[in-house]
Order: sequence, then structure tokens, then C-alpha cells
Amino acid sequence: MMMRKYQPKGRPGQQHRSGNFSHGQKADKLDEIINNATGIGANQTNGLSTSRYTQSRQNLRIIPMGGVEEVGENMTALEFGDDLLIIDMGLAFPDETMPGIDYIIPDTKWLEENKRRIRGVIITHGHLDHIGAIPYILPKLGDPPVYTMALTAAFVKKRLEEFGLIGRSKINVLTKDDVLSLGNFKIRFFRTNHSIPDGMGLCITTPVGQIVYATDWKFDHTPVDGKPTEFDKIAKFGAEGVLLLMSDSTNATKPGYCISERELGITIDRTFAEIKGRIIFANFSTSITRIQQVFDAAAKYNRKVIVTGRSMVNNIEIALSLGYLKIQPKIIIKSEQAKKFPDNQVLILTTGAQGEDAAGLARIARGDHKTVKIKKGDTTIVSASPIPGNERAISVMLSNLTRLGSHVIYNKTLDIHTSGHAQQEELKLMIALVKPKYFMPIHGEHHMIVAHAELAKTMGIPESQIFTLDNGQILEINTAREAKIVVDPKIVTGYVFIDGLGIGDVGEVVIRDRQVMAQDGMFVIIMTLDRRTGKLINQPDIISRGFIYMKGNDDLIREVKHEVRKLVESKGKEKLEPNWAYLRNVIRDEVGEYLYQKTERRPMILPVVIEI
Amino acid sequence: MMMRKYQPKGRPGQQHRSGNFSHGQKADKLDEIINNATGIGANQTNGLSTSRYTQSRQNLRIIPMGGVEEVGENMTALEFGDDLLIIDMGLAFPDETMPGIDYIIPDTKWLEENKRRIRGVIITHGHLDHIGAIPYILPKLGDPPVYTMALTAAFVKKRLEEFGLIGRSKINVLTKDDVLSLGNFKIRFFRTNHSIPDGMGLCITTPVGQIVYATDWKFDHTPVDGKPTEFDKIAKFGAEGVLLLMSDSTNATKPGYCISERELGITIDRTFAEIKGRIIFANFSTSITRIQQVFDAAAKYNRKVIVTGRSMVNNIEIALSLGYLKIQPKIIIKSEQAKKFPDNQVLILTTGAQGEDAAGLARIARGDHKTVKIKKGDTTIVSASPIPGNERAISVMLSNLTRLGSHVIYNKTLDIHTSGHAQQEELKLMIALVKPKYFMPIHGEHHMIVAHAELAKTMGIPESQIFTLDNGQILEINTAREAKIVVDPKIVTGYVFIDGLGIGDVGEVVIRDRQVMAQDGMFVIIMTLDRRTGKLINQPDIISRGFIYMKGNDDLIREVKHEVRKLVESKGKEKLEPNWAYLRNVIRDEVGEYLYQKTERRPMILPVVIEI
Repeated sequence: MMMRKYQPKGRPGQQHRSGNFSHGQKADKLDEIINNATGIGANQTNGLSTSRYTQSRQNLRIIPMGGVEEVGENMTALEFGDDLLIIDMGLAFPDETMPGIDYIIPDTKWLEENKRRIRGVIITHGHLDHIGAIPYILPKLGDPPVYTMALTAAFVKKRLEEFGLIGRSKINVLTKDDVLSLGNFKIRFFRTNHSIPDGMGLCITTPVGQIVYATDWKFDHTPVDGKPTEFDKIAKFGAEGVLLLMSDSTNATKPGYCISERELGITIDRTFAEIKGRIIFANFSTSITRIQQVFDAAAKYNRKVIVTGRSMVNNIEIALSLGYLKIQPKIIIKSEQAKKFPDNQVLILTTGAQGEDAAGLARIARGDHKTVKIKKGDTTIVSASPIPGNERAISVMLSNLTRLGSHVIYNKTLDIHTSGHAQQEELKLMIALVKPKYFMPIHGEHHMIVAHAELAKTMGIPESQIFTLDNGQILEINTAREAKIVVDPKIVTGYVFIDGLGIGDVGEVVIRDRQVMAQDGMFVIIMTLDRRTGKLINQPDIISRGFIYMKGNDDLIREVKHEVRKLVESKGKEKLEPNWAYLRNVIRDEVGEYLYQKTERRPMILPVVIEI
Repeated sequence: MMMRKYQPKGRPGQQHRSGNFSHGQKADKLDEIINNATGIGANQTNGLSTSRYTQSRQNLRIIPMGGVEEVGENMTALEFGDDLLIIDMGLAFPDETMPGIDYIIPDTKWLEENKRRIRGVIITHGHLDHIGAIPYILPKLGDPPVYTMALTAAFVKKRLEEFGLIGRSKINVLTKDDVLSLGNFKIRFFRTNHSIPDGMGLCITTPVGQIVYATDWKFDHTPVDGKPTEFDKIAKFGAEGVLLLMSDSTNATKPGYCISERELGITIDRTFAEIKGRIIFANFSTSITRIQQVFDAAAKYNRKVIVTGRSMVNNIEIALSLGYLKIQPKIIIKSEQAKKFPDNQVLILTTGAQGEDAAGLARIARGDHKTVKIKKGDTTIVSASPIPGNERAISVMLSNLTRLGSHVIYNKTLDIHTSGHAQQEELKLMIALVKPKYFMPIHGEHHMIVAHAELAKTMGIPESQIFTLDNGQILEINTAREAKIVVDPKIVTGYVFIDGLGIGDVGEVVIRDRQVMAQDGMFVIIMTLDRRTGKLINQPDIISRGFIYMKGNDDLIREVKHEVRKLVESKGKEKLEPNWAYLRNVIRDEVGEYLYQKTERRPMILPVVIEI
């Protein structure tokens, strides 16, 4: 195999960034590289005192910036000496406690302050919970170089393009046998299976030992693309000695193992065989292997495919151009051409399997899709498990589809989806292969992380060697290979909310206000006062929304106005100088209490004083 | 068996209400009663013209008031001649599109206008989605008499008591072999299995034929209370001839059959056997059979039980007093006594398995429960499947519990819950036993209703004889046994929102306002104008919440104020007389557009004009 050397171009102010990787490095050569880099053995007995321990730059620090307290916004930083390595930059979707928010990304202030030391960003695969935050974060970190596989690189580029950021960071395309060297870190890759091709696990060689980073993986012995997990590599890393395994906890609460994507293909085939009318098939636009199986079954049953939804069109184009998707010539038609074909020769492939408001299937279900109108005899297949929180939206969508006359098939009626995340038996096998000294479950809500930790315990890893971290906590391992969780007050993590064009301008206060107004509405009391006398010039004005139906509650409003008038009169007298802040507080409390007694609701009360 | 006659006491204005029922009527006597009442046969060939058809009082009208477009708020009205019969009065829980709402109940305006004709209310079982709306609706219908079984009656009384309504409606306690006669309707009962004891299906004999009403049932051949479904009765009704089957669609999308509650008992037993520390067991307070099994397993493993949560305490008291729950003497202890027992002899039984904010388990998980504090070594068992929409709340709760040190067991990790609703194989068996001419799936969202209809089709019921209705639509069957769906414009149904003390004072407008404010906040613009000149006296005031962090966005606010000032000046000139409504509209549009361009958010904009 050819060997290729790579040296990223230096940019002003980025002279510390360096990286090199070699394609197709042979295994026996690797050992040499690793031994040179890690220095394992030499420092193993070098015990450090606690005070030095927490300050030494000779400690490896592993910092989950996101993804260990939630499903999504996956991002991890590794630090040794002067070098920082970043793995993934994902986004998360908001839950119902974050009204109006589009996405959540990790807070990267600490990394911004240390951007000079960032040697590179490795992206493990092309899902939004691993690449979605790239356009928001990458520019703030000085556009460090990105390293990833071909399909992922294309998805990343597409996303940067949409944000007008293309051409800033260098996107380096690797292959699975490359060895990447970034400062104190050497990274080798192993292919995993997931619901998107090109998913990669990492073996990171550091000066204190090796880390296996296994994210968003499952073991699929019969993958659709014929490319199984590289067990040989994982076993080899295990044999070399692994200090720490970091592994995906998304399905750590689920017993058993994942169904192979290929078995799902059989279900898809059998389902298609029985459908007489049109098929509307909805799934994630990134699930290229699922899309492959849909095209295969469509071809077998002589159906033309209409592709709808921007991301579905984009991703299919990318996957076709890179050879990750192989389809019959002329199988894709435009929606205008559909009329030429009988219903049993038409399939519509769309996004929106999670009931997302703006996506193709939700628009089809509401009847406001530009080109696709449901008709009696259609069958809609929703090929997804609901992401927690999306169940109601999906259910409403299914009901709308049935109202329009479509038959619906979804995860409850048929196993029309399989997860891309390892379940308990697979997770155990990974631990058995890697045989790590330390274990750190990542990716999941805290109870999933804990479930994964408990699995590791049953595998014989002592509890003291298992670390469940929160975002922003640090697993610090010294050269004596002693590990502990520390907290660095400089590293502040948290959610950064993306809302429309705003990044981080919606904080906790704004969210709390939205929650209060969503719960019981708001109630503005405007008092126009004479600046000199402190007396009301007008009747108080009340503007209320979301609290109560105003027209039917004249008495309540009249009573509040009366109460406000009394309060202004009495409280105005209490002080020599009118104290509006004090008056506003009194009004807020008194009116709030009055409204609660009358309605058992607590609207947001906003007293406003206008001085004339 | 003794026969007992019952005649409800007449009240002023209720002279038309009448009811009688007989305990333990023998089967051979029943046939006579039925034949007298129904007149089946006599009118069968009596064809009616369409115009007379829709107006005739000699048609049976079946009106789902709620429960056929959603899971919950189950309520059905039957009408023949001058008689109205009501089955159940349930509530539903709001989804995320109804912020701030506590419950939803059906709109019963039509029934209120016809309350004189209501002969009685039959309650099939004691779950909130069947009894929860009773305190809200019963008084509006003139407190008609309620007929139900013993345990359900006790739950209904408890609920009425909580609302200070006890003693108004007569709550008549029936037994399963009673025959109830209410006007044109004769009602027989058959025992079903469900997650609460005393669940009853109905066979309603009407002048046009018999209706089997099967709600919230499953077939459990090994029920915990040893009381299986009365297949013999169902088969007998089928043999007599059933015009219409109405049956529960909650699980119509699920293949297979429900697991027996007893099998769950085995899982509970096996789980308890392995737990070393305290057990916190959360489930529905109405699931008396589940509670029985928890007590049985607790006794077996020598654990004392602490009961916490108001409804859990109440329902256990009721079930014990009526003999529906049988427990070891002295097994229940107070939380203060817990210290006397080692952890492996303590079990805490609580509510809140759905993550409800105010319920026991959520409080325990937040660490603010009065008496129960989680400690390391505890095991929390959440014995429920999430009701769609509750997944995120449950997940957060599980994470909080693990953070406090509890091990957690829930539906994904172990089959620690079984549904009380029949799945596809059971639903088919019901249809096979009843052999109805017409079929009307009830209870579920539209796509579940449709799935049930499709099952019925596969059983050979022609599509033209299957009716999927919306709330407030009517299935009308004439004496010729011809059925069709009609719409009576007088019958308006819809959601009545319960919010705090308010019943129905939060309507669609208020909900929409809450949604808008939850999404992007609100933005009040106060303009103080000179009444005569139409000119601004002060700088415009801006009050905004939930839109953007105000402190960091001075420029934006300044710009808006400037814009408003310009608009007031130019628009004030456009008209001879100042037209505030016009000005407000212009400001709303222009500022809205400006803010959207700057932020891609659409807060609720409220321009206010104060005239001085």
C-alpha cells in the first residue's frame, strides 16, 4: 500500500497546529509508532502527589463537552501537554422544557480560549448529533482542520456550504487504515456498523496509554454494504493494551442485541410485495443503507422512486456520487412524471419519520406538500423508532395520514426499523474484546450511562475503574496510569441554545419566561402616573394574553383595575418620593395573589409605570 | 337468588328520569325481558325514506362525545326516543400543544340542553379516562343517577367527595349479573379483565337491536384475582344476535396478545428475590391487581410496605375495605417506622410511574419528598409503559434517581409492565365471539381506530358495515337495522380545557397565544400619545419577555424605538383623525418584520396606545 504524508497548511496565529497522517500504514509498523509515542512502561511507576497531580500538564485529560447527560450534542476534548484534540461536534434537539429552541450545542468557551492548542477535529460519522454543531463551533475555534472519512467529509462540507463557511477549515479525507498523528496523539481507526456508512471507532495512542473511542456503533455481521465491523483491529488494540474504553450507551438499557439491517431488508421486501397502491416511505435522510434497501426492493417490484425533501435529495446525491449508494439507472423520476405510471409502480421516498413539523412527511400528512397528495389506497411506511419526545407528533401525523386515506405501517405494527446502537450483549462483547483498564460510558442520559457502567461491572471491571462523568467534568489520568475525576473551574460547559439566527442569545432567563407564559400566560398592567404627584392620570390598562379569555371575564379585569388604583393611591403616600420599583413589586405580588385565588393560575405579571 | 327492585327517587324537574334493575336475574328470564324491550323482528322490514330517517325519534343514535380521536376522555351517549343513556365520563391529559392545561374533558353542551332525557350514567371501570370528568360534567347534567360496580362506585364517590359533590347524584352499586333497565335501554354486564378490578363490558338491548360495548379490556386467562373474562356471556350475546360491537382500539396496532398480569407477578417475584437494598415501587394507584402482586412478593421476601402518595393511600384503603385487596396483617408501616427495619425489609409503594411532576416518584427523584430520600443501594422499579408524551419526563426522572444512587428498573430493562388493553389477536377473538353486523372501533387516536377497522375487515365484516366516527358524529341505526353516519349540527363536541379552577375559560385563542409566547416570547410596545396632536409624549416603552436576552441587545431595542417613533410620526399624518387601530396594525407588521429579519423569530407583538 502507498504511504502518503500530510502536513496541514499553517495559518497566521495557528502555528501550533500540526498534523500528519499516513495512509495504509502496516500493522507491524504501527507498533513502533505507538511505542515511540506513548512511552508506556517508562513512567508507569512515576507516582505523583495530589497537588502536582491536578496541575501537571503531563496528565491526560478527557473532557466530555456534551453527550454524557443527554442523547445528542456529542463532543469530546482530549488534552495532553500543549495539545488539544476534539472528537465530533454534535447538536441535540430540545425537549419540551426548552420552548422555541431549534437546537442545542455545547458551550465551548474554554476551547475558544485555548483554540491555539487545538491540533484537529476528528468526526466519527455524519449524523447531526456528531456534525450538526460544526458550523456554529468551528469558526469560533479558529477553523481547525477536520479529519474524517469520505462520506462524512461530504456531509460536513454540505453543511458548511449551507452556512456559507466552505473553504475555511480544511476537511481532510482519511481512509480506515490511515494513521493520524496530531501532536501527542496518534489515531488509528476501525470500521464500525451504524445506520450510516463510514462510521469509525478510534484507537488513540497517548503518552499515558491507549484509548478506544467507540461511538454510535453496533455489531452487524451481515451489513447491507458488506463491510462488517473490523473485529480483528479491535482485538488487536485489546491485545496491545487499552487504558480506557469510551463506549456508546444509547441502548445500554436494552437487553439482547440489535437486529441486522439486512433482516430489515427482508421485512421491507415482504412488505413491498403485498402493497397494491403507491408507497410513501419515510426515514432518516442519512440512513444510506436503509435507502439502499428501499431502492433494491423498489427495483425488484418494478417501482419508480420519487425523492422528496431537501436533505433526502442532497444526501442521495452525495451517496451516489461517492459510490455509497448503487441504484438502477432511471429508477428515480420527478414527481411530474408519476402520472405516467400506475400506482403500484410508484414509491415516494421522503424525510420526516420523526414527525418533524417542517419535514416532508408531516407536510404530506397535513395535506400541504407541494407535489405529494395522499389518496385512498396509498401505504405510508414510517421507518423509525420515535426519538423520546416525538411520540405525540408522530401519532398525530399517523392519524392525519389515515384520515387522508393512507394505510400506515410503523414501528408498532411491524419491525420496520432497527437501531444503529449496540444493545447489552454487543456492549459486553466490545468490553470483552478491548479489555480496558478503565471504562467510561458516553453518549446517553445519565441513567443510560449508569446502566452501561453496571454492565461493565458484571464484566469484572472494578467499580473504582469505571467513571461516569457529567459534561465538563474531566477524567484525568497521570503517567502512572492513575485516573480520577476532577473539576476544572475554567471549563464551563452547558447548553447553548440556537433559536433562529441567534446563537446563545436565548439563555435560562428567556427560557424560564417562555415556560411561565406557556403555562399561564402574561398580564401587563400599565399605570400612567403624574411625575410630580405620583397619581394615576388614566385608568390602569391591562394587556393579557394566554391567561384567560378576556371577553368573558370583565369582572375580574375590573376588579384588578380597582385593586391597582387603590394600591397606587395608598403606596404612593407611603413614601415621600415615589418609588416605582417598590410600587411595581407591590402590584406584582398583590395582583398575582388575587389572580391565583380567583383562577389558581400564575401568569407572568408585568407592572409598567409610565411617567408623564 | 333474591331479586331486588330499584326505583331512583324523583327530584324536582327530573320526573322523566327512571331506572330499575334486578340483581341476579336468571338467563332464561332475560330472554323474555329482552324480547319485550327490543321489539326486534317487528320493525325489521319497516324501511324509511331518507328524510324521515334523519329525523325519526325511532332511530337509535350512538354518539361518541369523546375518546375516538384521542386516548382518553372516553364518553358515549346513546339516544332512542325520549331516552338518553351515557356511558363513562373520562378526562384526557393534554399534549404539548396545550401548554398549561391540566385536563381535557368533552364538551357536553348538547347533553346539558337535553338533560331532562338522561336516564342514567353507566361507568364501566374506575380509571380517570372513564371517571375523571364526572365532577365537572355530572352537576351540569342535573346530577343524573350513576350505575356501576362496587369498586368503581367507591372510586367515583371518592372523586365526588374531593370536589364537594358527594350526595348529589345517586351512585347505584350493581353486580355483574344484574339487569338494568333505563327507558328504552336494557343493560346486561359481562366481566372483563383490565388493569383495575370490576371492569365491565355491556350488552345493551335497544329497540333496534343489541349493542356490545367492550371498553378497556383484555383477555387474561390467568387473572390475579381469579376472575376471568365471562366468555360464556359474550358468546351468548353473540348467539342472540348483536347488531353492533363497539370495542377498545388502544392497542389495535399491536400484533399478538397481552401478557397475563400473573406472568408479571412472576417477574416481580424474581426481581424482588435479587434485590438487596430498599425497593421503591412506582405504579398506577388504580392498578389494584398489580398492587396485590407487589404486596404478595413483599410478604414473601419479608418486606414491610410504606405507602406514599395521596391517591395510592386512598385507593388501597378503598380496595382493602371492599375486599379487592388482601394483604398480610401489619405489613403496612409508617415511614417513621422504617428505621426499625434493615433496608432489605423495606418497600416503598408510590405513585408517579409516568413522571408526573407532582406525584410521589418525581418528588423522590428531585430529592424533595417529605419522607422518602433515595440512598445508595436502593432499587427503584417503574412499573409502567410510558403514555406517549411522557417519555422525556420519565427519562429525566430515571436519570435523577440514578444520580441519587438508586438502581433503576423500568420497561426497557425488564418486562415490568403489561398493558390492560387487548392486542390484535384478542381483538379478533372478541369480534369472532360477538359476530356483530356492524362494527365501530372506539377509544384511540384515529390511526388506532383505523387499524382496528382493518382488523375487522380481515375478519369478514364488510367495509360498508364498519364505522369510524369522530367525536360528535352520530351512528344512526333505524328500525330496519340500516346504519349510517350522520352529523347533527346541534351536537357540538370539542375539548373543554381544565386549567386550575377554570373550566372552559381557556379556549383555542388562549392556547394559541400561549403557544406563540412559548415559541418566541412577546414584545409589548407602549406609545404614550397626545390625544389632540397624535404625537408621542414619551419615548416608546418596550416590555419584552421570552424573546431575546434584553441586556445584550440594546442596539436592537433602540432601533425598534426609533422605527416606532418614525411610524407614529408618518402614520399620524396620514389620517385626519388619529386611528389607533390602524396605527397599531402598522406597528405590529413593521416591527414584526424587522424583528424577524434580525432574529428569525416571531414574538407576539402587542402595540399599546396610551392617550393623554
